[in-house]
Amino acid sequence: MRIGVLGGTGPAGRGIAARLASVGHEVVVGSRDRERAQHVVDELRERWGERVAGLAAGTNDDAASADLVVLATVWDAAVSTAAAHARQLAGKPVVSMANGLVKEGREFRPVPSPAGSLAAEVQQAAPGARVVAAFHLIPAAALADLDLILGSDVLVVGDEAARAAVLELVDGIPELRGLDAGSLANALGLEAFSAALLTVNLRHKGEATLRLEGIGPRRTP
Amino acid sequence: MRIGVLGGTGPAGRGIAARLASVGHEVVVGSRDRERAQHVVDELRERWGERVAGLAAGTNDDAASADLVVLATVWDAAVSTAAAHARQLAGKPVVSMANGLVKEGREFRPVPSPAGSLAAEVQQAAPGARVVAAFHLIPAAALADLDLILGSDVLVVGDEAARAAVLELVDGIPELRGLDAGSLANALGLEAFSAALLTVNLRHKGEATLRLEGIGPRRTP
Repeated sequence: MRIGVLGGTGPAGRGIAARLASVGHEVVVGSRDRERAQHVVDELRERWGERVAGLAAGTNDDAASADLVVLATVWDAAVSTAAAHARQLAGKPVVSMANGLVKEGREFRPVPSPAGSLAAEVQQAAPGARVVAAFHLIPAAALADLDLILGSDVLVVGDEAARAAVLELVDGIPELRGLDAGSLANALGLEAFSAALLTVNLRHKGEATLRLEGIGPRRTP
Repeated sequence: MRIGVLGGTGPAGRGIAARLASVGHEVVVGSRDRERAQHVVDELRERWGERVAGLAAGTNDDAASADLVVLATVWDAAVSTAAAHARQLAGKPVVSMANGLVKEGREFRPVPSPAGSLAAEVQQAAPGARVVAAFHLIPAAALADLDLILGSDVLVVGDEAARAAVLELVDGIPELRGLDAGSLANALGLEAFSAALLTVNLRHKGEATLRLEGIGPRRTP
């Protein structure tokens, strides 16, 4: 599948682009500045060689023209970026992986969204897009380190057809397991829980990954 | 420690009361109707015998006079129950374990709260209480089955001193691990994530429990 990453030069964008390329996808690393995207692709190729052969650099416009688009900007640019590419995003799966977050002392806190969640705001900004929220709980650095086996569960919510495509995308990454958590109404839980999880990381030693025990394969509806 | 359970006769209340009694606490099962509380205590004693020797029946007033109080009513009664006992709750740890939830078709969705979270509403209703939110992600039936080793992580948020007491309470239950997730601002994540987790349970076979991997013991601040 040809995948575009909007805001592909930041930590989340680099991480998801490298990881998806490493399992055989063609991935366009998009940026407002094409040269910056090329620089990131060169760096990733230098580090990972043939493992990221599917990476290509482009503008955000190039990335938005792919079959499936990941919105990987910093969180407070997610909505405006979706709005700027709304026409191209119409009809295709768009993955929102951001969550509004502030650091206050020794904790992270969720930033409330007037639409209920950042993903819902993205949906409003790009009404034709099939918005899905996923990948909030995997640290960008872990995504980017291809020698690291992730071993994590990824809750996926949003548009039904797009959700199925993203669950498949997740399951295609070794040791990740995609879990179907319903419609975009549940994006709030994924986004806000990220702040709690990051606070746990601050207050305990280490970097938490999510595992749910006690559940089996997805049921067909 | 003497623990009171407000709304102790519902599924969450029975579960947490039995589990806490089983590790040696004195637990007052509170109810608006004292006879109903006695009936529940009798049932739990019949099932678990000496393992729940610390259980006693009482009114919600009796439960609210304990050293630490768990608010275990159905979620839409949590705020009014806290308000009704606000005076007694002042100054002591009060654990909010509820989350606003509706079922729509094949999913659960979070109910938005005007205060940001149900726990924040509880805090507003009982301003002197040291409100903590915890235990959202453990199914009531699992809590109640004392033969079942829970094997789960419990994120705890809220008032600092009360949070420390509740983390200790959690760690005192075999195979539960208390994780410090910061102030009550992070109750939203715990509450809303519950809807996503319950939806995963509906859509996959089984009953999920939460495990975070990659983190170690709590740091001292």
